[in-house]
Amino acid sequence: QLFLKYKPYRLILLFKWLAIIFPLAAIIGSCCALFLWSLEWATKTRFLYPALLFGLPIAGFITSWLYSRYGKLAAGGNNLILEEIHKPNAGVPLRMAPLIFISTVITHLFGGSAGREGTAVQLGGSIASGIGRIAGLDKKDIRLLLISGIAAGFGAVFGTPVTGAIFALEVPVIGRLEYRALIPALTAAILGDWVCRLWGMDHLRYSMASFSQMGHFQLNIILFFKVILASIAFGVIARLFSESLANSAQWFKKVIPSAPLISFTGGLIVIALVYITGTRDYLGIGTIAAQPNGLQLGSFFDAQQHHYWSWLLKFIFTVVTLSTGFKGGEVTPLFFIGAALGSTIAHIIGAPVDLFAGIGFIAVFGAAANTPLACIIMGVEMFGADNIVYFAAGCCTAYIFSGYSGIYLSQTIGTEKP
Amino acid sequence: QLFLKYKPYRLILLFKWLAIIFPLAAIIGSCCALFLWSLEWATKTRFLYPALLFGLPIAGFITSWLYSRYGKLAAGGNNLILEEIHKPNAGVPLRMAPLIFISTVITHLFGGSAGREGTAVQLGGSIASGIGRIAGLDKKDIRLLLISGIAAGFGAVFGTPVTGAIFALEVPVIGRLEYRALIPALTAAILGDWVCRLWGMDHLRYSMASFSQMGHFQLNIILFFKVILASIAFGVIARLFSESLANSAQWFKKVIPSAPLISFTGGLIVIALVYITGTRDYLGIGTIAAQPNGLQLGSFFDAQQHHYWSWLLKFIFTVVTLSTGFKGGEVTPLFFIGAALGSTIAHIIGAPVDLFAGIGFIAVFGAAANTPLACIIMGVEMFGADNIVYFAAGCCTAYIFSGYSGIYLSQTIGTEKP
Repeated sequence: QLFLKYKPYRLILLFKWLAIIFPLAAIIGSCCALFLWSLEWATKTRFLYPALLFGLPIAGFITSWLYSRYGKLAAGGNNLILEEIHKPNAGVPLRMAPLIFISTVITHLFGGSAGREGTAVQLGGSIASGIGRIAGLDKKDIRLLLISGIAAGFGAVFGTPVTGAIFALEVPVIGRLEYRALIPALTAAILGDWVCRLWGMDHLRYSMASFSQMGHFQLNIILFFKVILASIAFGVIARLFSESLANSAQWFKKVIPSAPLISFTGGLIVIALVYITGTRDYLGIGTIAAQPNGLQLGSFFDAQQHHYWSWLLKFIFTVVTLSTGFKGGEVTPLFFIGAALGSTIAHIIGAPVDLFAGIGFIAVFGAAANTPLACIIMGVEMFGADNIVYFAAGCCTAYIFSGYSGIYLSQTIGTEKP
Repeated sequence: QLFLKYKPYRLILLFKWLAIIFPLAAIIGSCCALFLWSLEWATKTRFLYPALLFGLPIAGFITSWLYSRYGKLAAGGNNLILEEIHKPNAGVPLRMAPLIFISTVITHLFGGSAGREGTAVQLGGSIASGIGRIAGLDKKDIRLLLISGIAAGFGAVFGTPVTGAIFALEVPVIGRLEYRALIPALTAAILGDWVCRLWGMDHLRYSMASFSQMGHFQLNIILFFKVILASIAFGVIARLFSESLANSAQWFKKVIPSAPLISFTGGLIVIALVYITGTRDYLGIGTIAAQPNGLQLGSFFDAQQHHYWSWLLKFIFTVVTLSTGFKGGEVTPLFFIGAALGSTIAHIIGAPVDLFAGIGFIAVFGAAANTPLACIIMGVEMFGADNIVYFAAGCCTAYIFSGYSGIYLSQTIGTEKP
């Protein structure tokens, strides 16, 4: 009787979802693999031909023109996907996938400072929406499928499947976790990442010393308070980033009437920034450097290196790039800004540099995306479990100090921040 | 302007909570340390004097008499705390703390099969309620404080602070996470665990081989499906456990009119079980053995050992003990049952025994408590991050197969299970 009551129903549900999630994850995982490969090609090509930077204004012009000519709804990007999750409507157009793919690669080929997660989320969302239409799902299930698409895209592009799933459950509404989508999102993220890695994609990891031995953990209370202090700064910088992005975009729209011209101007400003600052370190994705010992994300985990203002420079390069209509994600630049700021704070207040770079890495992202749990899990998937207490303290502190103005304007508020 | 808008308010809030949470965590952490020390004393004393087992019926009689004479509201136990979280009413009486402390130690001294988490949660809840009354908090804040008390108790007693916090946020309502209590719960759990360890308490950890290398993780898809298969069993056993506990308790109440007599009978049945099965391995907490090579929780992580029916025996011993009114927790026996069942399944279907014992350990607990996220985090805090993908797959699968009848009868349903 116990078994009759629920087992067949659950099993059928499980198989139905597996039948849809398998192809979904396979397609999204493969697209993410191709995307990661293209990004690496674009970045290395830019290193080979530094003059490509001068094409940035034209590249921006073309991107924005493409979107205004062919984009239609797809121009909504991440926000369109969140809106469709909140209130399923016309669906996410399939054209979003090729458009965001190509335009993100263009950004990186010519040296715009941007990331990957926005692209992965949009690839995932548009493919999920397409599969949902083909499978004839109802609106409730399409909602779950969109969340699964985000999970698969995010999980595959960063190689962090559990983070991808929790991120997708957490991101639509601030202060709410969508338990309803738990199984499809987790399945999609695990399989999406699996497929992406089957294509030979591997992911960078940063090593961190252990400040707590598993099972014999003893909290260092001074270090704990230093983490909280630093994380207040992480939360504030996340908020400043989101607000600068939104305000800068609005300002450009008010001053320059045409989107392609805005992007053209943005490209010119980035070129100017390169010559003002005298460095190309803040162009592109920021995870690999042109020279073997050049500045990149991993540099901030090295206590021997001091880069006090890197966080500010990356902040400016990224806000200019993304607020003038270049495509790409916000998360990888946020990792960079967070790790740079964490390393700077650690040098100033006397704390382990790699630990603080790592906490900055996850906490600034989590605070800007309003996804505190996802960023704790990301810490674990990126750096291991040993420092989970410091990760949790950092991510939650940054979360409450970042306010409600995240990088996803279509997020709604479910629970007020504490 | 940005800073003025929110920083002072948040900072004051932070300090207010720290001022309350610090003493709360210090008291709960200290009580948990004393409790863990007493448990170890009780277990070792029982090993030294095996004849203590024959006192179990009398011990049960006294426990139940104590509760019926002095317990009043405190007899509600975990459920009273959850009800006070749902709808703050008369508060949790402070007498709950000494009553549950003493009666749990009695259970373990005389060989009842029980755990620790229920006791820790009740210590945390009653102390939190007491501090809330002293501090003159309003009902909304008392709610948060109760959640924080659970977090501190759970985190300290198992040495898993982040799990304690997430557990406390997840346990009141199925399918909902109480983001509002994020900061106080996390702070209480971290500090509670810190204080408990300052008293010299350490926690057992079980080692597990890595089936995925960090950063170079490649999912083994066959293993993945074996994990899911096993986790269906974990979910079903969790459900059977919760329902057996509730049904058995009801049955005893119907057949025997007096609570002390029920416990007396329960003690007699446990003694009979020892002689029927010819083993004392399933008495008590189950994490340490009387002989150096005796059966205990850690045995199931050893691929050389085969204990095919251990899960069933521990199941029966525990249901008899807890359903006849002995006090103690359900979670440590669930760890034992899960690890034992995981090891058995791994032997049968050909899978890594330590991995499956570990997944059983966390998944049966998570499924019976309806706290899937907390049990993923517990896997990470107990066994490290390397196998997080398998932990997540196992915990979520078991969660959806355990139904709504968990070990906490006063849990309410927030989101239907997928």
